Amino acid sequence: MISGHTRLIAHLGFPTESFKAPMIYNPWFAANGLDINVMPMGVKPEAYPELLRSLFRTTNVIGALITMPHKVATTALVDSLSPTAQIAGACNAVRLNKAGELEGDMFDGEGFVRGMLQKGQPAQGKRALVVGSGGVGSAISASLAAAGVTALTLFDTRRESGEALAQRLRKHYPTLQVTVGERDPQGHDIVVNATPLGMQPGDPLPLDVSRLTPGCFVGEVVMKSAVTPFLQAARERGCVTQQGVDMLFEMIPAYLAFFGLPAATAEELRQTAEIRY
Amino acid sequence: MISGHTRLIAHLGFPTESFKAPMIYNPWFAANGLDINVMPMGVKPEAYPELLRSLFRTTNVIGALITMPHKVATTALVDSLSPTAQIAGACNAVRLNKAGELEGDMFDGEGFVRGMLQKGQPAQGKRALVVGSGGVGSAISASLAAAGVTALTLFDTRRESGEALAQRLRKHYPTLQVTVGERDPQGHDIVVNATPLGMQPGDPLPLDVSRLTPGCFVGEVVMKSAVTPFLQAARERGCVTQQGVDMLFEMIPAYLAFFGLPAATAEELRQTAEIRY
Repeated sequence: MISGHTRLIAHLGFPTESFKAPMIYNPWFAANGLDINVMPMGVKPEAYPELLRSLFRTTNVIGALITMPHKVATTALVDSLSPTAQIAGACNAVRLNKAGELEGDMFDGEGFVRGMLQKGQPAQGKRALVVGSGGVGSAISASLAAAGVTALTLFDTRRESGEALAQRLRKHYPTLQVTVGERDPQGHDIVVNATPLGMQPGDPLPLDVSRLTPGCFVGEVVMKSAVTPFLQAARERGCVTQQGVDMLFEMIPAYLAFFGLPAATAEELRQTAEIRY
Repeated sequence: MISGHTRLIAHLGFPTESFKAPMIYNPWFAANGLDINVMPMGVKPEAYPELLRSLFRTTNVIGALITMPHKVATTALVDSLSPTAQIAGACNAVRLNKAGELEGDMFDGEGFVRGMLQKGQPAQGKRALVVGSGGVGSAISASLAAAGVTALTLFDTRRESGEALAQRLRKHYPTLQVTVGERDPQGHDIVVNATPLGMQPGDPLPLDVSRLTPGCFVGEVVMKSAVTPFLQAARERGCVTQQGVDMLFEMIPAYLAFFGLPAATAEELRQTAEIRY
């Protein structure tokens, strides 16, 4: 029940119709007696900077979830950015600190890494291949680097995207071994599809699955179906797999911590969510 | 269930803790299958103009309910003001018209007049006394004028407040007979307490109830108790009375119409409201 005591998390993007966060966060807040609401607001780029600033001048907005098309623009609107957001070049969470400054972070990749941990597969010391150096690929790469992978191979059909991401990674993680331009999964313990391939029927697979090392960890960002053709092929090779939706739920505990809210597990969030996958 | 399809009515004021609108509107919206939410946002004067403007640049905010301390400031922030809001010198509702302009209106007094009608007492052709020329007294006077009273007597302990209100009334209603500085209810068909007298135990009555004409209509803005000492005395004189809370519920259908939403009756709103008086 919304009242004058309710605190808000603004969910900012456009269009809003595909937003899922309200149906995941709000039932969990309600089930846990937290008087907090994720509030979707549709905002176009020309109106976004002023709205973001205004919302944080209210007395009851405690944070913002940022989505398309504002993730990149937000990096220039906050006062400080986490290393992960700097590397990703995008920001999907904003909070106000006690000094009155806006802090931005990026949890898309954190959801991937937490999902691995949840499956008993810490990223630390591993060698990873990330196919796709766009927004989500950059975010996953940044989080894998933060989680301690020793080598990261990047591939993007636009080679300059991969190169730019590699530069940002090397700046923050000078000892990380970064290679650009390859998409052979052989020799990698972690393999990620961070491209949209799998969204459309008939899409080619993002890489040559016959070169996957059996037992390696294969993750996917596409949420079109629970088990995409890529994940299916990886399973048939004997790989451990992670679905796109796992990332979605696993990143929410990271957001909750960022906003200073009580801890939840992804499993609890799945149980209370008003959407099913 | 809030989703990316939800439309919002921003409820703007500070502090927010005493807001009642969310608990009245939201259950009624839910009971009527309307995916709309009144969303309280606490905002202080220095942040208010930018927030108001920003909210109306979103794609899903359909209106704003304005409360303390912003009702007066809002008159200078909108592109056009209804005559009632001009006379009241205050604005408690804002919408965006198709031309992209902000329109302000004021429904505090409309709630009073609708409550009268509901009790079979149209204001048209009547003589009214309004004691108190502050925000709510001005709003009620403006709405009584719009509803067609022929004479309006104004009283305020700060005589200049009454004079200023009289000027604004005469400008918009040149044939209305406006008298300032009297609070003798004799000869009036409608008598209104628009002062805070009745909020505190031991407050004097706002006027000499022994001079009330039996059968006249007596209304009250104080909501501290359902039947204030003033209303009790008026009842004992054989007057028809209207409680402060009637105004609150009766103004909501006016807001709904202003925002282009389906019609409700005050009685329906009372039945679904999550607060009781």
